[in-house]
Amino acid sequence: MTGLFAGTFARGAAAAAVSDDAWFRALLDVEAALARAAARTGLVPATAADAVTAACADPARLDLATVVARAADAGNPVPPLVRAVQDAVGERDAVAVHVGGTSQDVLDTALVLLARNAIATIDADLAAAADTAAALAGTHRDDVVMGRTLMQQALPTTFGLKAAGWLAGLDGARLRLAEVVASLPVQYGGAVGTLAASHGSGVDVRAALAAELGLATTAVPWHTVRLPIADLAGALGAAAGVVATVAVDVVLLAQSEVAEAAEVGEGRGGSSAMPHKRNPVAAISARACARRAPGLVATLLVAMEQEHERAAGAWHSEWPALTDLLTTVGSAVAWLAESLRGLRPDVARMAGTAAAAAEGPLAGALADALTPTLGKGAAHDAASAAVREARETGRSLADVVAARTDVDAAAVLAAAAPDVGEAGAQVDAALGEHAALTEGTP
Amino acid sequence: MTGLFAGTFARGAAAAAVSDDAWFRALLDVEAALARAAARTGLVPATAADAVTAACADPARLDLATVVARAADAGNPVPPLVRAVQDAVGERDAVAVHVGGTSQDVLDTALVLLARNAIATIDADLAAAADTAAALAGTHRDDVVMGRTLMQQALPTTFGLKAAGWLAGLDGARLRLAEVVASLPVQYGGAVGTLAASHGSGVDVRAALAAELGLATTAVPWHTVRLPIADLAGALGAAAGVVATVAVDVVLLAQSEVAEAAEVGEGRGGSSAMPHKRNPVAAISARACARRAPGLVATLLVAMEQEHERAAGAWHSEWPALTDLLTTVGSAVAWLAESLRGLRPDVARMAGTAAAAAEGPLAGALADALTPTLGKGAAHDAASAAVREARETGRSLADVVAARTDVDAAAVLAAAAPDVGEAGAQVDAALGEHAALTEGTP
Amino acid sequence: MTGLFAGTFARGAAAAAVSDDAWFRALLDVEAALARAAARTGLVPATAADAVTAACADPARLDLATVVARAADAGNPVPPLVRAVQDAVGERDAVAVHVGGTSQDVLDTALVLLARNAIATIDADLAAAADTAAALAGTHRDDVVMGRTLMQQALPTTFGLKAAGWLAGLDGARLRLAEVVASLPVQYGGAVGTLAASHGSGVDVRAALAAELGLATTAVPWHTVRLPIADLAGALGAAAGVVATVAVDVVLLAQSEVAEAAEVGEGRGGSSAMPHKRNPVAAISARACARRAPGLVATLLVAMEQEHERAAGAWHSEWPALTDLLTTVGSAVAWLAESLRGLRPDVARMAGTAAAAAEGPLAGALADALTPTLGKGAAHDAASAAVREARETGRSLADVVAARTDVDAAAVLAAAAPDVGEAGAQVDAALGEHAALTEGTP
Amino acid sequence: MTGLFAGTFARGAAAAAVSDDAWFRALLDVEAALARAAARTGLVPATAADAVTAACADPARLDLATVVARAADAGNPVPPLVRAVQDAVGERDAVAVHVGGTSQDVLDTALVLLARNAIATIDADLAAAADTAAALAGTHRDDVVMGRTLMQQALPTTFGLKAAGWLAGLDGARLRLAEVVASLPVQYGGAVGTLAASHGSGVDVRAALAAELGLATTAVPWHTVRLPIADLAGALGAAAGVVATVAVDVVLLAQSEVAEAAEVGEGRGGSSAMPHKRNPVAAISARACARRAPGLVATLLVAMEQEHERAAGAWHSEWPALTDLLTTVGSAVAWLAESLRGLRPDVARMAGTAAAAAEGPLAGALADALTPTLGKGAAHDAASAAVREARETGRSLADVVAARTDVDAAAVLAAAAPDVGEAGAQVDAALGEHAALTEGTP
Repeated sequence: MTGLFAGTFARGAAAAAVSDDAWFRALLDVEAALARAAARTGLVPATAADAVTAACADPARLDLATVVARAADAGNPVPPLVRAVQDAVGERDAVAVHVGGTSQDVLDTALVLLARNAIATIDADLAAAADTAAALAGTHRDDVVMGRTLMQQALPTTFGLKAAGWLAGLDGARLRLAEVVASLPVQYGGAVGTLAASHGSGVDVRAALAAELGLATTAVPWHTVRLPIADLAGALGAAAGVVATVAVDVVLLAQSEVAEAAEVGEGRGGSSAMPHKRNPVAAISARACARRAPGLVATLLVAMEQEHERAAGAWHSEWPALTDLLTTVGSAVAWLAESLRGLRPDVARMAGTAAAAAEGPLAGALADALTPTLGKGAAHDAASAAVREARETGRSLADVVAARTDVDAAAVLAAAAPDVGEAGAQVDAALGEHAALTEGTP
Repeated sequence: MTGLFAGTFARGAAAAAVSDDAWFRALLDVEAALARAAARTGLVPATAADAVTAACADPARLDLATVVARAADAGNPVPPLVRAVQDAVGERDAVAVHVGGTSQDVLDTALVLLARNAIATIDADLAAAADTAAALAGTHRDDVVMGRTLMQQALPTTFGLKAAGWLAGLDGARLRLAEVVASLPVQYGGAVGTLAASHGSGVDVRAALAAELGLATTAVPWHTVRLPIADLAGALGAAAGVVATVAVDVVLLAQSEVAEAAEVGEGRGGSSAMPHKRNPVAAISARACARRAPGLVATLLVAMEQEHERAAGAWHSEWPALTDLLTTVGSAVAWLAESLRGLRPDVARMAGTAAAAAEGPLAGALADALTPTLGKGAAHDAASAAVREARETGRSLADVVAARTDVDAAAVLAAAAPDVGEAGAQVDAALGEHAALTEGTP
Repeated sequence: MTGLFAGTFARGAAAAAVSDDAWFRALLDVEAALARAAARTGLVPATAADAVTAACADPARLDLATVVARAADAGNPVPPLVRAVQDAVGERDAVAVHVGGTSQDVLDTALVLLARNAIATIDADLAAAADTAAALAGTHRDDVVMGRTLMQQALPTTFGLKAAGWLAGLDGARLRLAEVVASLPVQYGGAVGTLAASHGSGVDVRAALAAELGLATTAVPWHTVRLPIADLAGALGAAAGVVATVAVDVVLLAQSEVAEAAEVGEGRGGSSAMPHKRNPVAAISARACARRAPGLVATLLVAMEQEHERAAGAWHSEWPALTDLLTTVGSAVAWLAESLRGLRPDVARMAGTAAAAAEGPLAGALADALTPTLGKGAAHDAASAAVREARETGRSLADVVAARTDVDAAAVLAAAAPDVGEAGAQVDAALGEHAALTEGTP
Repeated sequence: MTGLFAGTFARGAAAAAVSDDAWFRALLDVEAALARAAARTGLVPATAADAVTAACADPARLDLATVVARAADAGNPVPPLVRAVQDAVGERDAVAVHVGGTSQDVLDTALVLLARNAIATIDADLAAAADTAAALAGTHRDDVVMGRTLMQQALPTTFGLKAAGWLAGLDGARLRLAEVVASLPVQYGGAVGTLAASHGSGVDVRAALAAELGLATTAVPWHTVRLPIADLAGALGAAAGVVATVAVDVVLLAQSEVAEAAEVGEGRGGSSAMPHKRNPVAAISARACARRAPGLVATLLVAMEQEHERAAGAWHSEWPALTDLLTTVGSAVAWLAESLRGLRPDVARMAGTAAAAAEGPLAGALADALTPTLGKGAAHDAASAAVREARETGRSLADVVAARTDVDAAAVLAAAAPDVGEAGAQVDAALGEHAALTEGTP
């Protein structure tokens, strides 16, 4: 029985995008594209390239069990994979296999393809989460909620502005990932980066390979200068951080004592021992997944120190680190999208908490309004009596004040009204930016 | 096709010790032990505990597919697992299932068992590596090699002392892991740690459970005070660091320009494109695996901040982090054991390099010895001539000096002899400590 | 103007224990002890050792400005420091300076001394925090508070048990630090570890140096096998994690909506804009300081990979990382001790929250008790009416139930009483362990 | 005496750009700009804003000692700083102090300014390093050096291509930092982000403040959505990684056994005990500084999880982490610029090593050429004899082959010539990109 924790830590589609199957597919896609690129530059016959493409498209023709068996001894899976493809196409067409390439050319390019594919799934979940956040921001544009700083109630804000903050983070994470994906480069340099085995056409093959795969090209190989990996690490780490900050907000809103939002999900979050509990499982899981990211980012940054023309260990350490990072960020984002989709804000509870927090200021405003007629002391007593009256009759102080005729009740209420400043305008601005981004998305 | 990178990053037996199968086994072992502990304290009938034990010993009787399917929604796999065990034993004996426990009790205790089992395999590989290092230290106790500081040749030392340093590190890592394993505690506190569901026998059940599983007990639960996890993280991180420092030495000794040791392994390390190359694949892989550890340790330390009576995410983040840490340290150690087993020191090459480095001092000693008779200038010229003679005749300068009769050749050679100080005595001391540790091992 | 953030991030005495002054003192203490050790083993005259000791005890005699100026170019401060000491003692006694040592011998040993001193201050603050936690646990042994899991109210526990959990963590951190300090070893091996410059007495000098400084000795040098640094990192990281988990509990108890404890500190935590706010500044700052630790631990673990006989960069990276780690953990612990010292639990509020949480179970118990006489439906209505009555009259449901004569009120209340199980016994056990530890402390 | 390690770990100008003085300057610059922005939007009189600007420009007028003394208790330095500015300008003009702002507005914006200033110094050193790398690449465009993969000699490349790889990394790091700096946003939202204290002009004040400081603006505040901090962390971490990979290459080229480059620096790198040693201190120090970065990046990413409208600890933890990160990256870059400036490639040694590595292939080519006339066996013997002849006469095998008349010597030499493929063209491309970047720099 496998998959015990997969539902939690390999949620969403990113895990599949970096699975062993996906790795094989990506490695073979690179080999096939390299054959075609070599054919386009005239290094090998088109027929041979076609044969390689056909073999790579049909893993059943390849002895992948042997690749798996030999990968560790070879130091990486490419040498046995090249052999498997050569065997599959036969001696004549083997001329088009792995032309001018070194293992790292194929592995790095495959890793880049995997990352692009995984990020496509991450982006889809981020977009879904952002759309939900945008809907929440729009719906609750003017719904008051207490703002809390350093975990203390501070001053009122709106739930719309809170959601707009989430939205800005989610869209920001998308933009950063999109920029990184757009700049991901092909790797092609041969054994030590000189393109010496490319018969003078190496730069052209590199460009053709980049075109085949829709990747950027570079002036020199990046075998040991790992900026593309650092870019991926940075943008994925940032995305995880955004997920974490939204998720912790959901967890805090769902606290029993706050209870301003609940996370609804079928068959989820109940406690067998404590049926009254409803745990925000999706937000909790999003947080758990996001927390794996910073350590993995650090591992990838440490790995940037790479020796001479190919690193003795640091390069290898990137494979599980980046794979895990894509998986866990994908999982975190998938959970967050679920969490937001199931989020049920309790606007009345928010308003009640804000109103309770506002009673002090309101009593003060009432006393101020009564002072000209009653004098300071009696005005204060009258305000205290109003607070007592509200409590005893189960009404809000605002209702009690509204009913008074000895003051300009509307003015008193206005003076003490929760002021959410330009929350609404800021929500509108964030929604505008989201709309622009969404329209810009194909 | 799976396992593409398993040969590299899930090498050794630790990976199997933390597999999904192992997780199920550990979770069920804890539930079975808890049933027996409850029976020993009189909370449930012994027959019911026996039934639970029997069911837990036979996963085929349990609907584990449903456990997997429901684990993520439940927040962790224990609630559906408890249900599966209850279903398997039937209503009467279900009274002995999960007595007084909460999910975290079972999950934490299972994690501790997994860690203990995985570390047993890591210890075995560390012991093998240490034995090999000890053999190298003994065999090469007096074989001179250039010491290198800041990557520059400095002064001579012995290969024996170098290996003794590795040995001390490997044994040190073993000692630290053993201490941590010996202190690993059971977890048992019930929903919020009060043992309220244990009918007044909770402390006794905890002690009995600890005895059943061979674990330590604690005064209070450690649901959100995670020192045992930090201990594991620290000792595993330290072990990874020792592996890394030995592995980088192997990689550096195997450098083409140094070539003082080679790593021999069947079918390994060859380069198809460059048959003259022999890569120290095991040491490189050990280094790659070890590099995953620090980030995982940091993730576990970050996770120590846990809220109230059960953390909302931090706790969950420990599962993959600790599992990955055990796997990668196990893999690193397994690779290092292989690397050292296949290590072939080239003593002649070491001696040659040391001798070459000693030529400057030897020429100086010759000049000094000739100065009384020849005067400083002529003595210097004579020494230069000797160096030239050695080079042209392909002999060592030492041979040339030894043949001279115009100086006390033995004294000159002694004055410039590479001095390895107390290298030998230190090797003996390290071997003595290793023998004591080894004898102390059951 | 300096020290802008020192009050927050360099709080407590640890920062001073790793200051530049402390570094100089430690480096000079090591050089002085080395001179005496060399004298004890007969390598140098006692008078010369005395002269070195005297010079090292009086930094005013040394040209430390030149040491600072030359340290970076030398790669570390020891070479210019040795020169400064030699200059101070004069040619005759210079024979007793730095006998047989290499820079790393002195720097590593000094770092170990600094760590020991800094940890002494950390231990003092940990002990103070633990004593306060013990007092809280004792005072509130039986005061009920809602237990919260996954940030949801779960079942009642006691504030005493919560504090006992903190206590166990703080004492556990102390024990781990004490073990590490007790094992800290001297470093002495000479340029490449052979003790070649110690005239055959190197092992003896090492033992004498260890005795002079109260440190452990080792079979071989640990120039590139950094287990002692890893031990420090691990224990300090664990201590930071304990601080963080206690601090987050304080922050959460102090939340406006929970308000079960407040942190009182003179002139602290007020908000100029929002006078009603009272921020738990000490707990927040403890958390902030603790969060710096995991990254620093990872840096130290990464640095364990060290080349040959002296690392080219990794060794150097330990100095700021360990210094910062000691500072930030010291600061975190100092803040936490302040936070706990100023913590004011609101037992009535805790009880009120627990009672409110218990109303559902109590209404259920009342309905159960009425069912035999009224039948299920009417019993349920009667229970609902009791809840309504309580709310309208401002009494607790317990009071309303207690006044009923149609049921065995005491039995109903007992059936729904908050059950804190063996919380008290566990508190007592933790206090017992703390007492034993405290008595064991000199 | 302070600054013991400053020459190593606070090298370059970045440390000064994040000093306490710089912090004060930045905080005051923000307060002054805020006053002017408020005046521009009509919220306060221009005369008051001028008074605030004047006070902030003259720290001597402010009681900064009190700010330092109260910062920790206040939770951050802004509240006492605001008070100090208010006191300095007097009651009438105090209306223009801190208009509508909250502490985090000022602190975040100041942090952004500090980062921008520090990165300007980092960029200058990166540019200097890149220029040096470009010069090396150009000068040595066609100088052959052995390429090394997995620390084994592989195939020849050029030193020019190696330097071009460094260049691409350094320029890439610059581009990433420039993008981040260009996007750094102002922070302005008031206590909970609503701009409620900005009298309806908050969005305008934000825009004016951004314009005053040359920063970007945002739709909503980023008080707890920390993408700008993540961007800084990612780009600085990437820069550190580039420094590390170049520095490790320098260290490896300077190895005694490789000796293909030396680092020359006045008064640096000598060893008192071992005068023949020359340590590449600048590259080693660059490596040491760069290694501090990944842990700090991880700390900043962990800190992205921030609660509600202001985080209780995570926010605070950013200050030392980002300050340290800027310092250590600045220091690493400064050291690397020095290292490259002092780098002395030994082209003859490179060529010699490459030629030695080529002897095997050359002997093979000679045997192949002789085979038609002599037959395989005799041809092989003749080739072996040529190798022997070269060795005995101290000539290169190439010279010996060139002198032969029984084969087409030129063809044989060409067949075995080290082939560096398109190394030159790639160098030219990298230099072209560097020139474009350099011209694009103001």
